[in-house]
Amino acid sequence: ELNTLFLDVHYADIAEIINELDDDEATYLIKLLDSDKTSDILTELDEDVREAILRNLSSKEIASELGELDTDDAADIIGELPKEQVQEVISKIEDREHAKDIVDLLRYAENSAGGLMAKELVKVNENWNVLTCVKEMRAQAENVTRVHSIYVVDDEDKLKGRLSLKDLLTTSTKTHIKDVFIKNVDSVNVNEDPEEVARIMSKYDLEAIPVIDEIGRLVGRITIDDIVDVIKEEAERDYQMAAGISQGVEADASIWELTRARLPWLILGLFGGAAAAVIMGGFEEMFREYTVLFLFTPLIAAMAGNVGVQSSAIIVQGLANDDIKGSISDRLIKEMLLALLNGFILSCLLLIFTWIWKGDFPTSLAISISLIAVIVVAGFIGTFVPLFLDKRGIDPAIATGPFITTSNDIFGILIYFSIAKLILGI
Amino acid sequence: ELNTLFLDVHYADIAEIINELDDDEATYLIKLLDSDKTSDILTELDEDVREAILRNLSSKEIASELGELDTDDAADIIGELPKEQVQEVISKIEDREHAKDIVDLLRYAENSAGGLMAKELVKVNENWNVLTCVKEMRAQAENVTRVHSIYVVDDEDKLKGRLSLKDLLTTSTKTHIKDVFIKNVDSVNVNEDPEEVARIMSKYDLEAIPVIDEIGRLVGRITIDDIVDVIKEEAERDYQMAAGISQGVEADASIWELTRARLPWLILGLFGGAAAAVIMGGFEEMFREYTVLFLFTPLIAAMAGNVGVQSSAIIVQGLANDDIKGSISDRLIKEMLLALLNGFILSCLLLIFTWIWKGDFPTSLAISISLIAVIVVAGFIGTFVPLFLDKRGIDPAIATGPFITTSNDIFGILIYFSIAKLILGI
Ligand SMILES: [Mg+2]
Ligand SMILES: [Mg+2]
Ligand SMILES: [Mg+2]
Ligand SMILES: [Mg+2]
Ligand SMILES: [Mg+2]
Ligand SMILES: [Mg+2]
Ligand SMILES: [Mg+2]
Ligand SMILES: [Mg+2]
Ligand SMILES: [Mg+2]
Ligand SMILES: [Mg+2]
Ligand SMILES: [Mg+2]
Ligand SMILES: [Mg+2]
Ligand SMILES: [Mg+2]
Repeated sequence: ELNTLFLDVHYADIAEIINELDDDEATYLIKLLDSDKTSDILTELDEDVREAILRNLSSKEIASELGELDTDDAADIIGELPKEQVQEVISKIEDREHAKDIVDLLRYAENSAGGLMAKELVKVNENWNVLTCVKEMRAQAENVTRVHSIYVVDDEDKLKGRLSLKDLLTTSTKTHIKDVFIKNVDSVNVNEDPEEVARIMSKYDLEAIPVIDEIGRLVGRITIDDIVDVIKEEAERDYQMAAGISQGVEADASIWELTRARLPWLILGLFGGAAAAVIMGGFEEMFREYTVLFLFTPLIAAMAGNVGVQSSAIIVQGLANDDIKGSISDRLIKEMLLALLNGFILSCLLLIFTWIWKGDFPTSLAISISLIAVIVVAGFIGTFVPLFLDKRGIDPAIATGPFITTSNDIFGILIYFSIAKLILGI
Repeated sequence: ELNTLFLDVHYADIAEIINELDDDEATYLIKLLDSDKTSDILTELDEDVREAILRNLSSKEIASELGELDTDDAADIIGELPKEQVQEVISKIEDREHAKDIVDLLRYAENSAGGLMAKELVKVNENWNVLTCVKEMRAQAENVTRVHSIYVVDDEDKLKGRLSLKDLLTTSTKTHIKDVFIKNVDSVNVNEDPEEVARIMSKYDLEAIPVIDEIGRLVGRITIDDIVDVIKEEAERDYQMAAGISQGVEADASIWELTRARLPWLILGLFGGAAAAVIMGGFEEMFREYTVLFLFTPLIAAMAGNVGVQSSAIIVQGLANDDIKGSISDRLIKEMLLALLNGFILSCLLLIFTWIWKGDFPTSLAISISLIAVIVVAGFIGTFVPLFLDKRGIDPAIATGPFITTSNDIFGILIYFSIAKLILGI
């Protein structure tokens, strides 16, 4: 029946199918399928679908699913359960060692290395001899899907290094681990930022990294599959941020969720537009004689926004990649020069267009010179704001998209009319 | 001396240091360092730095570096050499088997699974018995940093499945591989898009995936560290695209490179602004009586741009994640409803502001109603364009940032003035 049908289907694919079903169908399918597959399916489901299914399972059923999962995935699921159910579910996990490991993981913040790590790993004591070591390893490896590395700890569980399987197999069984292990091992602190863990693992091409606590004890291990998820989620968040979408919504979210994620940034834009209107109102007396100036306000706003977004995107990405060298003032000077070069080329094009269109050279020239000033200031704001936020310890990624375009609309319009007024001697 | 100093420093860190040196210093350091480290350093360097160093090395020196690299990295470096040097370098690689593998890889497009894969892998023939298999595996594993999986092929080298190390160790040495291997194995075609390979490996949490050619022969293997790079580069490209930056430049690129990457999008914006100016010019007769209408053009352009970017970002991301279900018209209707809801809230805010500011209710109402229309159309364009491009097989990621803001500026201004004119009965 159903189980044979789904036998060769990967749990991640079944999860995709279940994500499309309604809650009752989803629960029905989960109850019907073989228990060893359902736990993996649960970890891959969308959060809201999983929540609905778990509501329909008894604490005992949930506990048995968690018993089959790696500790990191089990802890993540428990973190989503209603608070009053947590203790009951944990008490019903049969393997008490496993339950203890899960409880250990619950105390780490989601957004830390501790929140990412699993307890499944293979470790040996430096004081053991090779024979004991092999025996113990075999027992531990039972619970670990992929061994990756054998970590060496001392009597206090402090991480000392790692062991090469080859060395282990080619030395006499009475040799002490102390005398053969490799002292050089990358590790991260349990409080480390997941994005920093991702940076380290991708830089050093690691498939797993041990996690140590404040006093150097080995407390867990992070594997690359979970880091791939971190990298993808981070990239999606930054992309959405730059587009003026908060909260990490997905395309299939409800209209209400999408509104909550999008409206705040639109209201920011509305305020910016209102401010620009008030500023333009201050130049109203120029309207009759210099109408053409006003025709170019969308162009000015667009250029200020585009230049600002380009500058800030480069800086935000450079900061994320540790790619920004030298002082802030060097960086600002470079960006100013760049804006000056771009501004000059664009202004020449605009000068030609306006002159041909309106036949009024002085006004055309005034507009073009103002445009250069607008572009330079836009480049300055786009460069300075993310650098400043970063120095202050604030994620510079918020200083992209609507934030920069809105402030650049306001400054752009102000500078444009002020300089044009000055040049035209009004 | 230097080699002892750098003994414990990871090659990726040394590469970061060398990236900051000038060409002569960099070459000097590479020639000084131990040869087994330099080849790895070379793969991690920035492309321009590597190019400069390779220019200063003889073909024999380059060949000896390539001899120490995995075939995928060696092929990538050869791809960067001047065409006339390639043959000479390859002829000087001592290990002829290795040279042959590298030459094999050269014929695949960079942007394909073949361009990502390495020849290093462990494979056994289904007709071997366990004893032969173990012996052969041991020889092959010499060249492979991490085994990950043992692939099973038939006499024609066609991929049949994989072997569990445990099964191998627990069956009699005379058993045929045919009778113990696992028939279920994920693989990708050699022409597959790297982004699709990344999607598969991340979905199924794979650390390595075998690559097969058009008739199913096992031709290579892709490992997760290279896929992590694919994911990061793709995310950076999309982010830059959305910000109006082409060509994947970095923060430390030259002013000239940055201009080439940024100017085209700015010129697009300039054309858009000019078009908007011409459109506004068509409504010039309204200037004197309805000045306030013109004060809000930056606001209209900003809202049209922001809504468009939000919609297109959600769609582009949803398409990349295979998250867009249902028909295009369903999606458009949802986005219209969302825009209507957002537009209504924003218009109410704007109505209150304008009414208080200018005290002219009919004009304020006309502006607000026009704003709703602008937002709905902006949402439509932001949703439709990426969906349309995707249907046409064009990467929808280009339909973000400047592309959408520019077209939405034009349509926004046109709709705004047309509808306001209609409502005010001018
Ligand atoms: Mg289960
Ligand atoms: Mg967790
Ligand atoms: Mg890497
Ligand atoms: Mg690498
Ligand atoms: Mg995990
Ligand atoms: Mg970030
Ligand atoms: Mg070397
Ligand atoms: Mg390649
Ligand atoms: Mg995954
Ligand atoms: Mg997973
Ligand atoms: Mg590789
Ligand atoms: Mg704009
Ligand atoms: Mg893409």
